[in-house]
Amino acid sequence: MSLAANLSSKWITVSETHPHVLHAELSRAPVNAFSSELWAEYGGLMDRITHEGRDVRALVLSSALPKVFTAGIDIADLGAGAPAADDARKSLATHTHLKEFQHAIGSPERCPFPVIAAVHGLVIGLGIDIISACDIRLAAEGTQFTIKEVDVGLAADIGTLAYLPKISGNASLMRELAYTARMFSAEEALRLGLLSNVVAGGREGVVRAALDLAAVIAQKSPVAVSGTKRILTHSRDHSVAQNLEYTAAWNAGALQTADIPESLRAAKARSQPVFAPLRKSKL
Amino acid sequence: MSLAANLSSKWITVSETHPHVLHAELSRAPVNAFSSELWAEYGGLMDRITHEGRDVRALVLSSALPKVFTAGIDIADLGAGAPAADDARKSLATHTHLKEFQHAIGSPERCPFPVIAAVHGLVIGLGIDIISACDIRLAAEGTQFTIKEVDVGLAADIGTLAYLPKISGNASLMRELAYTARMFSAEEALRLGLLSNVVAGGREGVVRAALDLAAVIAQKSPVAVSGTKRILTHSRDHSVAQNLEYTAAWNAGALQTADIPESLRAAKARSQPVFAPLRKSKL
Amino acid sequence: MSLAANLSSKWITVSETHPHVLHAELSRAPVNAFSSELWAEYGGLMDRITHEGRDVRALVLSSALPKVFTAGIDIADLGAGAPAADDARKSLATHTHLKEFQHAIGSPERCPFPVIAAVHGLVIGLGIDIISACDIRLAAEGTQFTIKEVDVGLAADIGTLAYLPKISGNASLMRELAYTARMFSAEEALRLGLLSNVVAGGREGVVRAALDLAAVIAQKSPVAVSGTKRILTHSRDHSVAQNLEYTAAWNAGALQTADIPESLRAAKARSQPVFAPLRKSKL
Amino acid sequence: MSLAANLSSKWITVSETHPHVLHAELSRAPVNAFSSELWAEYGGLMDRITHEGRDVRALVLSSALPKVFTAGIDIADLGAGAPAADDARKSLATHTHLKEFQHAIGSPERCPFPVIAAVHGLVIGLGIDIISACDIRLAAEGTQFTIKEVDVGLAADIGTLAYLPKISGNASLMRELAYTARMFSAEEALRLGLLSNVVAGGREGVVRAALDLAAVIAQKSPVAVSGTKRILTHSRDHSVAQNLEYTAAWNAGALQTADIPESLRAAKARSQPVFAPLRKSKL
Amino acid sequence: MSLAANLSSKWITVSETHPHVLHAELSRAPVNAFSSELWAEYGGLMDRITHEGRDVRALVLSSALPKVFTAGIDIADLGAGAPAADDARKSLATHTHLKEFQHAIGSPERCPFPVIAAVHGLVIGLGIDIISACDIRLAAEGTQFTIKEVDVGLAADIGTLAYLPKISGNASLMRELAYTARMFSAEEALRLGLLSNVVAGGREGVVRAALDLAAVIAQKSPVAVSGTKRILTHSRDHSVAQNLEYTAAWNAGALQTADIPESLRAAKARSQPVFAPLRKSKL
Amino acid sequence: MSLAANLSSKWITVSETHPHVLHAELSRAPVNAFSSELWAEYGGLMDRITHEGRDVRALVLSSALPKVFTAGIDIADLGAGAPAADDARKSLATHTHLKEFQHAIGSPERCPFPVIAAVHGLVIGLGIDIISACDIRLAAEGTQFTIKEVDVGLAADIGTLAYLPKISGNASLMRELAYTARMFSAEEALRLGLLSNVVAGGREGVVRAALDLAAVIAQKSPVAVSGTKRILTHSRDHSVAQNLEYTAAWNAGALQTADIPESLRAAKARSQPVFAPLRKSKL
Repeated sequence: MSLAANLSSKWITVSETHPHVLHAELSRAPVNAFSSELWAEYGGLMDRITHEGRDVRALVLSSALPKVFTAGIDIADLGAGAPAADDARKSLATHTHLKEFQHAIGSPERCPFPVIAAVHGLVIGLGIDIISACDIRLAAEGTQFTIKEVDVGLAADIGTLAYLPKISGNASLMRELAYTARMFSAEEALRLGLLSNVVAGGREGVVRAALDLAAVIAQKSPVAVSGTKRILTHSRDHSVAQNLEYTAAWNAGALQTADIPESLRAAKARSQPVFAPLRKSKL
Repeated sequence: MSLAANLSSKWITVSETHPHVLHAELSRAPVNAFSSELWAEYGGLMDRITHEGRDVRALVLSSALPKVFTAGIDIADLGAGAPAADDARKSLATHTHLKEFQHAIGSPERCPFPVIAAVHGLVIGLGIDIISACDIRLAAEGTQFTIKEVDVGLAADIGTLAYLPKISGNASLMRELAYTARMFSAEEALRLGLLSNVVAGGREGVVRAALDLAAVIAQKSPVAVSGTKRILTHSRDHSVAQNLEYTAAWNAGALQTADIPESLRAAKARSQPVFAPLRKSKL
Repeated sequence: MSLAANLSSKWITVSETHPHVLHAELSRAPVNAFSSELWAEYGGLMDRITHEGRDVRALVLSSALPKVFTAGIDIADLGAGAPAADDARKSLATHTHLKEFQHAIGSPERCPFPVIAAVHGLVIGLGIDIISACDIRLAAEGTQFTIKEVDVGLAADIGTLAYLPKISGNASLMRELAYTARMFSAEEALRLGLLSNVVAGGREGVVRAALDLAAVIAQKSPVAVSGTKRILTHSRDHSVAQNLEYTAAWNAGALQTADIPESLRAAKARSQPVFAPLRKSKL
Repeated sequence: MSLAANLSSKWITVSETHPHVLHAELSRAPVNAFSSELWAEYGGLMDRITHEGRDVRALVLSSALPKVFTAGIDIADLGAGAPAADDARKSLATHTHLKEFQHAIGSPERCPFPVIAAVHGLVIGLGIDIISACDIRLAAEGTQFTIKEVDVGLAADIGTLAYLPKISGNASLMRELAYTARMFSAEEALRLGLLSNVVAGGREGVVRAALDLAAVIAQKSPVAVSGTKRILTHSRDHSVAQNLEYTAAWNAGALQTADIPESLRAAKARSQPVFAPLRKSKL
Repeated sequence: MSLAANLSSKWITVSETHPHVLHAELSRAPVNAFSSELWAEYGGLMDRITHEGRDVRALVLSSALPKVFTAGIDIADLGAGAPAADDARKSLATHTHLKEFQHAIGSPERCPFPVIAAVHGLVIGLGIDIISACDIRLAAEGTQFTIKEVDVGLAADIGTLAYLPKISGNASLMRELAYTARMFSAEEALRLGLLSNVVAGGREGVVRAALDLAAVIAQKSPVAVSGTKRILTHSRDHSVAQNLEYTAAWNAGALQTADIPESLRAAKARSQPVFAPLRKSKL
Repeated sequence: MSLAANLSSKWITVSETHPHVLHAELSRAPVNAFSSELWAEYGGLMDRITHEGRDVRALVLSSALPKVFTAGIDIADLGAGAPAADDARKSLATHTHLKEFQHAIGSPERCPFPVIAAVHGLVIGLGIDIISACDIRLAAEGTQFTIKEVDVGLAADIGTLAYLPKISGNASLMRELAYTARMFSAEEALRLGLLSNVVAGGREGVVRAALDLAAVIAQKSPVAVSGTKRILTHSRDHSVAQNLEYTAAWNAGALQTADIPESLRAAKARSQPVFAPLRKSKL
């Protein structure tokens, strides 16, 4: 059965563009506003791919809409909230809601393969949370970003502020953008260290670049790539000494892989190596 | 009573330039050398504003002297030290002194509003500690910086080495600058990730840019901005997972703010939102 | 006895180029492949200098080969592994081996003086681990880098993934390079935040620049430089508050140094200060 | 609908013994061996109660079998493991399996109400992991415990070794028990700090004591109890300073509860306070 | 001037019972209820002694009332709270209030000398927070304790839950007590690991035992005792490896003390050693 | 070649008492005072056994002297210290010295097998550091302990203060003992949580009990025991969540051991299982 079979949902179209590569496109016109239903769909997609053990080795996330990646949270979802017996219970219900929301948007981190965000047009509010939790970020020339939350009266709480201090390289600029909610360009995002690269050719250009990158990654040993991802994520959150110990424990098992001799064999033969899936699919 | 009333002191002039915006200018001629008295005054100012609950929403720190932000610590303060009964007690007295000094210079981090450093001319030694503890750093073209401490025979101990690895983006350059005490330009500081931006127009130019930025921030919801500041500071020092949990706990209460409907109302009406102060002033 | 006496070994030549400055050159033709023997030699050199208390104040690491810094691990060392009674014991033996390997390559961090990597040509696989554990990284124009490990079927485990998230400033680019094993230029390494600078003049140029930098550092107070190094390393792995407390404890003793009055005296006299060695040599 | 409705499953019987109190009894004769199916059922029960927002305020876990709490993992589950393409993939599949297993057994920590383990007879291997993840542990006189894993050739990996150093008070005794797999009595478990208390009267006695304790807890404010649980769990894993900050953030919202005036009112009236459920049930 | 001069305040009487030993007695009849004013007084006392550099080497805290250590927070202080513009600002004001309250009650940890709590009668609610932040806890026979907060509808937030998991040795019993708010005896507190000892002789007995203990401590080197306190507090919140590094940095200076030769001299001479104050008093 | 061959040194006698069990006896009359030479010998012994891969599965440490385990550091070693150019260099030399000393005394933690301290008579000062770094502590009836350092004018810096907060269960008692340097009995040590047990029969009794315990451990799977040790040590210094992740990574490899089927086979056959050494000896 094909990799992408049955994965598409109401507002997310999933296709297999190269072997082991999935392309997930957001398409909730007019602006990909994230209602609770959409973010549940989004988190569910990533977790389902991971749980079912499909042999995905890279995934590209983009928007199918011509002018916008996402305008962020669906404003209709703000403020509502279930009625509660008192203010503390309202706070508690909010806490529970936020944890579920964070869990869904944080799903790329739980995938054993890299997730590449390829953005264009507008990337607003929740859009920054979404791409911050991905492994790699590419933007089309002309993309405009904004950490919009303060303009709505709140602090970003779904990942932006948790990730940015660790994935970018200029705390002064980061705070300026987070306090002002002003638009910033792809070039400024690059200077912030948020993006790998800015790509010409609009939406098509950035998606093509991301899929090409995904295709390269998909040819690598999945033991090597998934281990690299796991170790980098651990490294972000631990000291150098703690990470070296964890890495040694991890690779103690992972180095017993057949992918190493296969890689050496293929390099010598100047052929493409062939790697087994990470695990048996549950499908 | 005005925001800035009674805040000016011997060597720091405080004025209110825009609604909710304070401008604090260092003016201890000839070079803003920081004696114990000056840094106590500096830390005291920040803590007093915070404690009294004045409705400040952004503060700009700059120098009133034409050619220098600060030449750093007042050399007369070095080495002296109280007489002590033995070498260990001397060490202990030094430890106590350093903790007080760090506490004063670290005061911007304790403010519920952003502090923007707008520097020009020379930023030497303690000057780097001071701006590192601020939220945002802007420099005039031609500003010269130096992590001067090794030239005086010591390791920087008031914040520079604690902050730099977390607020900049090039550890190799950071270590080069810290080991050599060489001058570096605003452009190199930008490349290091220490600055948001380099601004033309000398002292006036950078101060104007900073005050404009402060004025923008001061129009935002103080619940949103102060929460963003607190969460970013927490994020710098904790793992992603720890920060997400903290953020959810924080926003569980903060999302009950009237600033959200007010923001939505004003956006729809294309008017400027009006926000209550964070808390009642003690004045 | 000279600083460099007796330090050269089979594949590493050590010379004293300026007072208190050592130059260590890798020369295992044709590509400085790191066999177990070479990395043991490398780690042993650093630890021996440190342990013997030689009055070294900076060390430059480079390659004596014209076209390559290092091609990385000696492929002959991969895969072999001692025979083991079962798979778990094989994992355990691998774990022990990795810890020793990490310990050797991590030796620059244990030196009380800065270690500057001056690279040119090719820097492949283990080469990135090696330079990541150094304090400062300079590259010649035209240098090509690659985090090669995924191409061999494994995750980098000797330091690259532990250090990169903390010493560079663009997590997106870092992950892209780690997942694809593609070559990247010195300019891209600079943008990543991996290098202080890119230097013209090929191997000679970058080595000269590194030695000049080392010579500058060697004229500074060794109490100040070694303290700065230790505190920056601590800062990388702890929170701002934890580091400020540690720094105060460290400087409580270190500020009792004669290097401070000597620095002030020399500055006033416009002469070069003279500093005692950090400790008595064991030689 | 009753609290316990629909919660019983193949091997776990759930009843409501007091208002807001559930009693979950393990009954997989002959020894409550935990197959994958049973631990999935166990974790699913806890998560389902939590997710559905049933107004549970305490849960007691015990065994319905006369002589044993649990003999631990079902030996049929050991060793099998899915076939894998190579040793590294086998390690990776094991890792995935362990994480799921840990997640299920760790479910009591995710409940907003206290979980009380009431044990008797034999508590072997996985039994220690299970009770360690609970809030409170009571044992009948004559209960025998053993950290059995080393006797099967492995280190306990589902929670015992993660929890014990933090929930008991004698590391020497803990290590002795973990290294030898010897049986230890309820009295020794009490001395280790593993149990609150040892209760007379066999299985009935300990279950009655646990249900009485649960009934007391169930009369308290659920805002207060769930907050206390959350904060204690945070405290276990963070420094005092980190926890105080988190606690302040948490209680900033939680103190707005109507349970405080209701508690004061009831205390003054010497009546039993009445508290609203934490949140609306999804049932 | 005497050590205790000017330290007594409205509800706290301070006397000097032995050389370098202070005795602080709470006496706000009828039950030492802690109003905001009292806890401010309490925190202020500790910080003032520390800041003024009085040569205090141990302090005993007890209650002057015959039947109670403290009934906890003054109920009049609960619930009130300043009026706020919206629920979020109310949460923020609560947060600020809690941080100040925690800061005051946490003051014993900031003192360079040990603080010994000597309790009798009733120790309720805030009383547990207060003694948890002290170094040593002694109780008279018959003392009754309760973590009362859940009975008032809230989670303890001034230190109890932050300290208990780190200073006691039975997490099961600790949680039972925190969830039920039931009274527990001195014997049970001893079993929990909360107390050093239970002392006969009622209030007089426990105070005498505490003062005797304080007198012993006051005869020791203040460099040694204050260093031990600081290192133990650090150890509680860091890993073993982190603490060993910090301890080495601390003792690098502290071992240069004249207290070592003086101790050796006195031991040889079988006389009482005489130690200089830690630092010059500011009085 | 026998396990113990060549391991005895000047003041430490090593013998093999049971298969895979070593007994190391301290015998530097009259009081096992630890000079630099002795602690180097001690650390060297442990590291040599570990490095050479001898098939040791448990080690018992005791004293050969009839009345004392150790009187602690050799007083002749105190205070001396190498001459240094200034006070800061003296501090730095002290720091280096302390790190080496800590490294030697911390060697039991680096062994892949449990180390059991069996003490009698007097355990003074450094003696507590030594046994705190061991896995298990047993004492003869009548043993007297003291954390002696404050009596010599210093804070314990070789492990006591780093380990005690994590391996015992009563912080109040621990601080009382550390601040007063008073003698405490084996019974009090047991109450502190420092010992597993107190054993009758004097030196012979406790040594016999420890060797019997070691013999039991030596019959277990070394994969299981060494993994348990490593995971417990990690658990002590990390959060529950961090440790569960590490444990899963570790056991992913370790569960592939032949010791599991061999354990099951032997259990079924009611015979003693036979396990391969952890790794090939280097001898």
